[in-house]
Amino acid sequence: MAGNTFGNRFRVTTFGESHGDAIGGVIDGCPAGIELDLVAVQRELDRRKPGQSKIVTQRKEADEVRFLSGIFEGKTTGTPIGFIIENTNSKSKDYDHIKDIYRPSHADYVYDKKYGHRDHRGGGRSSARETACRVVAGAIAKQVLGKLSITAFVSSVGEIKVTAPYTELDFNEIENNPVRCADPLIAKQMEQLIKEVKKDGDSIGGTITCVIQGVPVGLGEPVFDRLDAELAKAMIGINAVKGVEFGLGFEATRMKGSEHNDEILPNGLTKTNNAGGIVGGISNGMDIYFRVAFKPTATLMKDQLSINTQNEVVTVQGKGRHDACVLPRAVPIVEAMAAIVMLDMYIEQYGKLKM
Amino acid sequence: MAGNTFGNRFRVTTFGESHGDAIGGVIDGCPAGIELDLVAVQRELDRRKPGQSKIVTQRKEADEVRFLSGIFEGKTTGTPIGFIIENTNSKSKDYDHIKDIYRPSHADYVYDKKYGHRDHRGGGRSSARETACRVVAGAIAKQVLGKLSITAFVSSVGEIKVTAPYTELDFNEIENNPVRCADPLIAKQMEQLIKEVKKDGDSIGGTITCVIQGVPVGLGEPVFDRLDAELAKAMIGINAVKGVEFGLGFEATRMKGSEHNDEILPNGLTKTNNAGGIVGGISNGMDIYFRVAFKPTATLMKDQLSINTQNEVVTVQGKGRHDACVLPRAVPIVEAMAAIVMLDMYIEQYGKLKM
Amino acid sequence: MAGNTFGNRFRVTTFGESHGDAIGGVIDGCPAGIELDLVAVQRELDRRKPGQSKIVTQRKEADEVRFLSGIFEGKTTGTPIGFIIENTNSKSKDYDHIKDIYRPSHADYVYDKKYGHRDHRGGGRSSARETACRVVAGAIAKQVLGKLSITAFVSSVGEIKVTAPYTELDFNEIENNPVRCADPLIAKQMEQLIKEVKKDGDSIGGTITCVIQGVPVGLGEPVFDRLDAELAKAMIGINAVKGVEFGLGFEATRMKGSEHNDEILPNGLTKTNNAGGIVGGISNGMDIYFRVAFKPTATLMKDQLSINTQNEVVTVQGKGRHDACVLPRAVPIVEAMAAIVMLDMYIEQYGKLKM
Amino acid sequence: MAGNTFGNRFRVTTFGESHGDAIGGVIDGCPAGIELDLVAVQRELDRRKPGQSKIVTQRKEADEVRFLSGIFEGKTTGTPIGFIIENTNSKSKDYDHIKDIYRPSHADYVYDKKYGHRDHRGGGRSSARETACRVVAGAIAKQVLGKLSITAFVSSVGEIKVTAPYTELDFNEIENNPVRCADPLIAKQMEQLIKEVKKDGDSIGGTITCVIQGVPVGLGEPVFDRLDAELAKAMIGINAVKGVEFGLGFEATRMKGSEHNDEILPNGLTKTNNAGGIVGGISNGMDIYFRVAFKPTATLMKDQLSINTQNEVVTVQGKGRHDACVLPRAVPIVEAMAAIVMLDMYIEQYGKLKM
Repeated sequence: MAGNTFGNRFRVTTFGESHGDAIGGVIDGCPAGIELDLVAVQRELDRRKPGQSKIVTQRKEADEVRFLSGIFEGKTTGTPIGFIIENTNSKSKDYDHIKDIYRPSHADYVYDKKYGHRDHRGGGRSSARETACRVVAGAIAKQVLGKLSITAFVSSVGEIKVTAPYTELDFNEIENNPVRCADPLIAKQMEQLIKEVKKDGDSIGGTITCVIQGVPVGLGEPVFDRLDAELAKAMIGINAVKGVEFGLGFEATRMKGSEHNDEILPNGLTKTNNAGGIVGGISNGMDIYFRVAFKPTATLMKDQLSINTQNEVVTVQGKGRHDACVLPRAVPIVEAMAAIVMLDMYIEQYGKLKM
Repeated sequence: MAGNTFGNRFRVTTFGESHGDAIGGVIDGCPAGIELDLVAVQRELDRRKPGQSKIVTQRKEADEVRFLSGIFEGKTTGTPIGFIIENTNSKSKDYDHIKDIYRPSHADYVYDKKYGHRDHRGGGRSSARETACRVVAGAIAKQVLGKLSITAFVSSVGEIKVTAPYTELDFNEIENNPVRCADPLIAKQMEQLIKEVKKDGDSIGGTITCVIQGVPVGLGEPVFDRLDAELAKAMIGINAVKGVEFGLGFEATRMKGSEHNDEILPNGLTKTNNAGGIVGGISNGMDIYFRVAFKPTATLMKDQLSINTQNEVVTVQGKGRHDACVLPRAVPIVEAMAAIVMLDMYIEQYGKLKM
Repeated sequence: MAGNTFGNRFRVTTFGESHGDAIGGVIDGCPAGIELDLVAVQRELDRRKPGQSKIVTQRKEADEVRFLSGIFEGKTTGTPIGFIIENTNSKSKDYDHIKDIYRPSHADYVYDKKYGHRDHRGGGRSSARETACRVVAGAIAKQVLGKLSITAFVSSVGEIKVTAPYTELDFNEIENNPVRCADPLIAKQMEQLIKEVKKDGDSIGGTITCVIQGVPVGLGEPVFDRLDAELAKAMIGINAVKGVEFGLGFEATRMKGSEHNDEILPNGLTKTNNAGGIVGGISNGMDIYFRVAFKPTATLMKDQLSINTQNEVVTVQGKGRHDACVLPRAVPIVEAMAAIVMLDMYIEQYGKLKM
Repeated sequence: MAGNTFGNRFRVTTFGESHGDAIGGVIDGCPAGIELDLVAVQRELDRRKPGQSKIVTQRKEADEVRFLSGIFEGKTTGTPIGFIIENTNSKSKDYDHIKDIYRPSHADYVYDKKYGHRDHRGGGRSSARETACRVVAGAIAKQVLGKLSITAFVSSVGEIKVTAPYTELDFNEIENNPVRCADPLIAKQMEQLIKEVKKDGDSIGGTITCVIQGVPVGLGEPVFDRLDAELAKAMIGINAVKGVEFGLGFEATRMKGSEHNDEILPNGLTKTNNAGGIVGGISNGMDIYFRVAFKPTATLMKDQLSINTQNEVVTVQGKGRHDACVLPRAVPIVEAMAAIVMLDMYIEQYGKLKM
């Protein structure tokens, strides 16, 4: 364990700081012979990149991925796929004012204590910029998975939430609004809220719901490497995530067994899907769905009290370009991590030759 | 990855089916030279065992652990600690009526589909009986961790919940009531609810809150093996768990950054602890706290519809001896898994010689 | 990494000290639905056990394996196979004279320095007794592998060696002589040498050759987890092993490329097999063969100088019951570790469902 | 396991094909706060690069490493160190004649069978060019290890070998001759032999001896992850390596225990060092030394028979620029892999904070 590799059979290792030369990664264990659509990979990156709409940060980062290995004549070779994303617009000067300051609810303080020193520019390694690498790996995983579909959308921002079950939503609406909410009317309200919060120099949290369809029965390796346990690790491992729940989740804690149990039908599927498609840590053939909790962005455009490296009280100034709400940009990250887990577990169960 | 090992530096591998000869495990990576209190280990097992009070299952299982290696003259030797718990009261006849039946919301169906056949007796490998092995490993981890304290308690059963923050609770109350709730008045109500549900042949869910105190700054290995991500995997990996949230968790999704951010004080601690002691995946020296969601027990004392191995609709009879609410017995399991994660991360950061 | 687990997809974890209560292990990742011949497993253990012939140690150890889980109705269930071998004849009194002594070329000294204290009885964890657990796992791996055949034999003892290539030997002879040499005439000479050495209270080294036949093309995971690299780790990990060579091995270092290269024939096989069946870390469909070097047993029936735990010079007395030559008993260990590696790599390449 | 990561605590993941855009890697788990001498890293790469002397291949490759992350203000940050080496002089046209041909004793055939298709240019992933990435990681490991010294030299080429024990050699001579032999007179003979072999269009094998000095007692994680077992895996994982032996190695197989045992002295060191510094898989404080066997280079400047992808017999033409003897360039690779193993084991034992 050294912290920067995720997955076992399909595994991604990432590197790179927010304002270093480049970020990048290595994808190992990708099955051979898969025709990759690299334009589709870039498209996923574009869904995560800054400046894509008015409600996200206006920083300019090209986020162009360059593949260095593992692909030959358009197909994966089964050897590791190395890639980099150059940091073209890294105004590290922008961060001089926080060089010796520990920002509240950021990782500055813990990185300094853990490692002794840190690259403070833009959050360094703890910056969410690193997740671009996960999006690259996830986009490839999605393509390998083929018929499985993995769809995430913003299901709440602050108090505004989608109340309809996902089965009643039209996923085609997700990319039609800047919030990436599957309900267009709710999306409008969310957009409005984000704009208000932004105007105040504040930020706001929310939830993302992820739905995985077309999953075969049998994915997941109990008793520890359960499908839901791996998904939970993947989700909590995303910057700003503070919770995850599968199926009815916390709501199930208030229910009786007679209400919650899912009756099994003659075709092996279940009448209800309160479990969210995973039983005993193994997929049961129903849709997998789970909800991920994001805290509000730690960076504010307001002054805050904190300390510096000399343990003196200082005022952290609110300046720079940041997201008042990270959720719209986090949607492709949730999908990416879900795809990595699903492919990892798929190869574990079926082998890498069965793609 | 083969599923039955948890941890990297301090790692536990478990084996055993509910009604096989024995369950057991191997603890590898335990630091050498630690004096172990084996009576305390057995005490933790007793907190998990059936028949301990009127509100849990009345099955009789001795759950006596026998250590086979890795301990010499009362101290750990640094070599693997092997242990077994014989299954003394395994009435497998009790399970003949479910031999060919897939019980609703149990893992019968997915195990059969994944592995081709299964030991159906008492749930076989998917039985929560396996968690006794985790409790053994966790009890040892707790002792190695020394000054760190790890305390879990039942914080809700159905709609009845502890409303006071954990800081206002007296943890000494936890073992004073059969529910293992830290609030004695709420405990009474929970006990009453469990009894009613039991009388109806039904079951009920709930939540367990876990608090870890005395944690040094710096535990956790970003970007993937974050402390919270590992804890999340550990918790979701417990039978019947459907969700986990750290600090304010889902509540944080409804907050603004200006409300949620934790101001850092000159001593490095934070004024509030909305983050729950983990920032950027690394412990920040504050108390770690998180909440775990348990669905209601799948086994009911009521008849339910399901299918058999021939895909025919059948009635699953409600009989046997089961828990109407698993939470009181799950408290030591949550603590055990938390202890395993904390020790694993502690060794990762400080090495195995620093105990 | 905690040291006591071998393998990734098919993995064995062992525990136990020479004179503790029991040794044992957990086999995780064994494919489900395999009918196991447990008598054949015990037969492999009997090939390793003490007292089986006049040229090995006359200690009496029953070495009876008891399986605790993972097997139901005669077939593997895909869940972990736990097993123990009780230590029935552990005369730890026999070892009181070495309690405070570091025996030459034994691991006593390094264990004490590494772990701070150790179970000194019979070598404790560093005893070759632990390899019985590997034999159990290997015997199961052999059965899962089915058509692959893995055959080891003693190819030299001291200066006496088999000169014929393995292709000219009759492997049926191996179990017909106590040395486990595939050449019956050479076996006689080896037996004679071992008896002489034993009479002198001395010990002698030797080599074991292992041949794996029926291997499909494509096993091995370059660039690091090559088939030969994994076999090398497995072999050097056996007690007393000091070297390993694949194909022509060290002899190849004295050759020219035009002599050494193996011409590829239209059927994909090679005219010669100087490479020993592995090219670029991947099996090429030819027989795999390699040779393992065992140093002479460290325990002598002669007095030797060494030091005690107070760093004082002492005489280590030569007494007890030991092997003058470990090679006959090491043959099943070499086969077992080879089988574990081959199955691990087989599952990696073909998946666990293809057995 | 996906094959392209080596190490556990200090781990390197490599990517890249011989004639792709770039090769590179990620070093994860490097302790923080280490001042790195990047010029020294490049110097190690230069010892491996083509064209450095008349006896190695005359291909021109700049092999300039570019670090992308993990280093800030000259010091390691504890975060992953990403790096790339661009492939500047990749004349892939040179390889058109082998596009559909499986060269004898190369990995062409097995890669095609394993992965279904391959990047044939210059050997693709199976090219020794990949080892440049290992040299980068090893050069960093060496610097972190500080006082430990790791020295490799060519100890034989064909029949010509260094006969003096390493303790009588002057390691300063190694870089004074193009063969990298520690004995200048033997070096001359080796150089002459390599030139003759080259003139014939042939190639020649040899051995490299590696000596590690200043090793503390206690490195190595038995029973499987022994120090020698990990070194063996590392060495056999180097292209063209067919054998490895520790201490006296195969010579020990011909010895008696009374000759081979190393008497322990009052200072804990041993009178002789036949074991090569590792006992029971753990370093004992003596020099570690081992010998690595390299087969002759597979590529010849002579015509050879083989088959093409249509299984037809073809003549493989001898053309291009290749090494008649890889050993001089392999010396830094052996050192690099040894350094990676030593640091990995060092962190495992002492933790990452004790550097």
